[in-house]
Amino acid sequence: MKLELFYWPEIQGRGEFVRLALEDAGAPYVDVARQPGGMQRMQALLNERLGFAPPLLRAGRLVLAQTPTILHWLAPRINLAPAQEAARARLSQAQLTIADWLVEVHDTHHPIASSLYYEEQKREAKRRAGLFLRERLPKFLGYFEASARTGKRISYVDLSLFQMIEGLRYAFPRVMRKLERKHPALVALHDRVAARPLIRAYLSSERRLPFNQQGIFRHYPELDA
Amino acid sequence: MKLELFYWPEIQGRGEFVRLALEDAGAPYVDVARQPGGMQRMQALLNERLGFAPPLLRAGRLVLAQTPTILHWLAPRINLAPAQEAARARLSQAQLTIADWLVEVHDTHHPIASSLYYEEQKREAKRRAGLFLRERLPKFLGYFEASARTGKRISYVDLSLFQMIEGLRYAFPRVMRKLERKHPALVALHDRVAARPLIRAYLSSERRLPFNQQGIFRHYPELDA
Repeated sequence: MKLELFYWPEIQGRGEFVRLALEDAGAPYVDVARQPGGMQRMQALLNERLGFAPPLLRAGRLVLAQTPTILHWLAPRINLAPAQEAARARLSQAQLTIADWLVEVHDTHHPIASSLYYEEQKREAKRRAGLFLRERLPKFLGYFEASARTGKRISYVDLSLFQMIEGLRYAFPRVMRKLERKHPALVALHDRVAARPLIRAYLSSERRLPFNQQGIFRHYPELDA
Repeated sequence: MKLELFYWPEIQGRGEFVRLALEDAGAPYVDVARQPGGMQRMQALLNERLGFAPPLLRAGRLVLAQTPTILHWLAPRINLAPAQEAARARLSQAQLTIADWLVEVHDTHHPIASSLYYEEQKREAKRRAGLFLRERLPKFLGYFEASARTGKRISYVDLSLFQMIEGLRYAFPRVMRKLERKHPALVALHDRVAARPLIRAYLSSERRLPFNQQGIFRHYPELDA
C-alpha cells in the first residue's frame, strides 16, 4: 500500500499526529508537500474539494482528510488499533477529544481569527490563554490521566497524547512543570512513547520538524502564566 | 437495540445532530436527561469518564461520546450510511468538518471562554463574529455547496447540514439571506431534509427544542452584520 501524506511542509501541526503513527509503525510513506512540486499536488487535491484543509492521506485511489478520520482508517492497517469496531470507536472518541483540545490550544494565541497576526489579537490571547490554563487544561489532563493507565499495547491515541504533552511543554513550560506533577500516568505514557525505537529514531531525524512560532503550539512567554 | 441518548435537556446543541438521525430513521430512543432522574444518570456516565462531555449514546453495553463518533457507529445501523468502510470514512470526514464549523459558530459569541457570560466578552465576540461571517462562513458554505449536489440517498451528514443551515438562519438571519442566494444546492438539500415525513413530524413535535440563547446557535443582532 503506497501512502502519501499531504501537509504544510514547515510546521508539525495536525499532520504530526499522522506522521507519528506512520513512523511508529515503520510504514513507508511520502511526505508529499516536502518534495519538489509537492505543494502544487496538495493544492490540486484541495481544489478538487477532497478535503477542507490539510492533512490529507492518499492510499491508492482513496483520499481522506481530517486527522481523526485518517487515523481511524489507517491505524488498524498498521497495527495501531484493534480491528474490532467498538474498540475502534472508543479510540476515535478519544482522538476527537484530543482534536477539541488542540483547537483550544491553537486559540490561546489566535482567539479572534487565524487570518490575523498574533500581535493583532495579543490582548484577547492573554485573556483566553489565562482561562485555558486555569480551567480547561487541567480538565483535559485529568480526563486523559484517568485513561492513560489502562492500555498495554500502544495505540495511535497514545502517540497523539505524547504529542500533546510535547507541544504543551514547548508552549507553556512554566505551567506544565506544575501540572505534570499531578499527572504521573500521562508523563509515564509520554516517556514510554518517546522510548520506542522507531519514535526515537524519528525524533532525532530531519523528518521531525522543530516546534516553531508558525505552528499550533507556540511559545509566547507572556501567555505562560 | 435499546438506544439511550444523553444530552443537556434545555438546548439543541450537539445532541441535536444525533436526535435528527434517530428521528429520521424512526429509531426508538430515550432522551434520558429529559426524563425524571435523567440528569443524574448522565452525570454518572461522565463521572465514570465514559466521555469528556455530552452527548453520549448508550447501546446495550456500549457507551460512546463525541457526536461524529456516535454518528459513525450509529448511521450504518439505521440506514443513514453505507456499510462500506471507504464511504463511511468520507462521511466521517465531512461530519468532522461540520464539527469544526460548529466550534467556530459557538466561538462567535464565546471567543474567550465558555465559562464567561457573553456580556463579559462582547467586544471580542463582535470582532470574531465579523471575521467569521466575512471569511470563514463563505468558505464552509462553499465547500459543502460543491458536495451537496451529489448524493441521492440521504445520509446523516445531510441531516447535519440541514441543522447547520437552520441554526445559521436563527443566529445570523441578515447575513444568511445574502449568502443563501449563492448556495442553492445547500438550500435545496435543507428543504429536501425538512420535507421528509419523520423529520417534519419531529420538527413540529415537543421533542424538538426551540433555538434559544443558551445553545450553540444564538441570535445577537449586533453580531449579525
